[in-house]
Amino acid sequence: MSNQGGPRRVAVLPESTGAWLDGVHEGTGTVRASVDVAEGLLWSSGSAAGLREVLSGSPSLRWVHLPVAGIDGFTEVLDTDRQWTCAKGANAEPVAEHALALILALYRRLPDFARGGSWQARAGRSLRGARVVVLGAGAVARALVDLLRPFHPHCVVLSLSPRALEGATWSHVGDLETELTRADVLVLAAAATSANERIIDAKRLDLLPREAVLVNVGRGTLLDHDALRRALLAGSIAGAALDVTDPEPLPDDDPLFAHPGCVVTCHSATVGESGAELLRDRARANLVRFVQQRPLLGVIDPRRGY
Amino acid sequence: MSNQGGPRRVAVLPESTGAWLDGVHEGTGTVRASVDVAEGLLWSSGSAAGLREVLSGSPSLRWVHLPVAGIDGFTEVLDTDRQWTCAKGANAEPVAEHALALILALYRRLPDFARGGSWQARAGRSLRGARVVVLGAGAVARALVDLLRPFHPHCVVLSLSPRALEGATWSHVGDLETELTRADVLVLAAAATSANERIIDAKRLDLLPREAVLVNVGRGTLLDHDALRRALLAGSIAGAALDVTDPEPLPDDDPLFAHPGCVVTCHSATVGESGAELLRDRARANLVRFVQQRPLLGVIDPRRGY
Repeated sequence: MSNQGGPRRVAVLPESTGAWLDGVHEGTGTVRASVDVAEGLLWSSGSAAGLREVLSGSPSLRWVHLPVAGIDGFTEVLDTDRQWTCAKGANAEPVAEHALALILALYRRLPDFARGGSWQARAGRSLRGARVVVLGAGAVARALVDLLRPFHPHCVVLSLSPRALEGATWSHVGDLETELTRADVLVLAAAATSANERIIDAKRLDLLPREAVLVNVGRGTLLDHDALRRALLAGSIAGAALDVTDPEPLPDDDPLFAHPGCVVTCHSATVGESGAELLRDRARANLVRFVQQRPLLGVIDPRRGY
Repeated sequence: MSNQGGPRRVAVLPESTGAWLDGVHEGTGTVRASVDVAEGLLWSSGSAAGLREVLSGSPSLRWVHLPVAGIDGFTEVLDTDRQWTCAKGANAEPVAEHALALILALYRRLPDFARGGSWQARAGRSLRGARVVVLGAGAVARALVDLLRPFHPHCVVLSLSPRALEGATWSHVGDLETELTRADVLVLAAAATSANERIIDAKRLDLLPREAVLVNVGRGTLLDHDALRRALLAGSIAGAALDVTDPEPLPDDDPLFAHPGCVVTCHSATVGESGAELLRDRARANLVRFVQQRPLLGVIDPRRGY
């Protein structure tokens, strides 16, 4: 079905219009086509079931692009019959910025000051020289290490496969428990997979020093939220900031919304211009690369699930 | 009264012991002495009246060190009969860190998320590329510019006298009003003097864009708090974070404690190890320099009042 020399045919489904898609095709060398003749598919919603149905009738599709950074909703529809890409890493800078905002907020006790309602006792500490353990060695971890550099931290980035990260030490995720025992800050910035579901459970939370704080900008399912509630209540960690939760959204009466030393930011790490625009940039960049037969960005490994 | 070749005599008053003074003299080449024979004086409290009394009976003192970073409480006792130093700049790194924490908190709407009590609509924006206007070109401004660098901001530092600041544009404080009209972030990081009392008044607050946020880590008296309350209520600025206030402490029923987009952190920028330890380091460093006849740190200009 390749179309050497002419424009590439790309379908856009299930919705062919929408804010983040407008203008994506322009100037990329692709044309919109119906899915039965398309070589590529820009999937424009979060519905995996809808995508499965489309794929079953479109064996000729060589490439599918998903409009999300974390593909945990799509893992069951992935196959090895074609190439899959997504927006992973596209939002890394705003997400890392959010992670730093949350770390500093916990260090400076901002949730408690915000709720105080009157002049409070002085509280807080400096992040300078802290030991920051980041679970996940993707683009968010790299961007966060860059933002942390002026604080002269000791950054340890944990992943399954070795990564060279300037300004950080890489450690195998098998060292997680050792690293937890000496962390000042634990940042969850990994993709959600079946292998790391609730990787931070009660036992591992208990390994953190009492002064440690936890920040989750990855996925809610990385963390056992019951165990976190208990740890905060017992004071076995100093604080937590959650941009993602399990379930998401959290029920309105969840104690995590008001617990001292805890703040929930309601999946806001990629808000504003940094959201739709970065998704659009990623889709457009991949359309150009598809035409030029250059390596695509955000390539998914269906076996690993991210 | 100089004592070439021997240890220098330094008095410590009004209290000769205290956490931040312990061990300050050790290894510096100074000895503690009564004030009538001392060449230097480490003043150990915030009392200007007490200091004035001591000075009137000690004309031989060649040097007085004040244990504070901001000397606005001491301006009336300063004279030109001897050298004056203080801890200005010693706390610059933790204060700059606090300023960044507050900027990011406002950009990411953390005060509102902390108070929300339930799942909130997504909100916030990225600091990347923002125009940050800093009033005051001292050590805090320099440290803040360093911390901001990974965000690729446009930093404008305003002061009376030109300063070379890597990563920032210097502008004369006479350009304040022009700079306010295009600021994304306004950081107050100046010493409090009679010349800049309420330098940010209603008229100047009104020059800020509606999306702008204000952070005060300098002194409360730099800012007209009535004007700030009105600006927040009218929505003419997006948010404010105050580590210092006027009066300080604020009365418990002050609306600034709970206003959406506003947080008060109760003079906490220098908490923890960064407080007493940095004051001690500064005093000790000056004792060593006093003995070695090297230039002292934190030299006060009595005419400028900082």
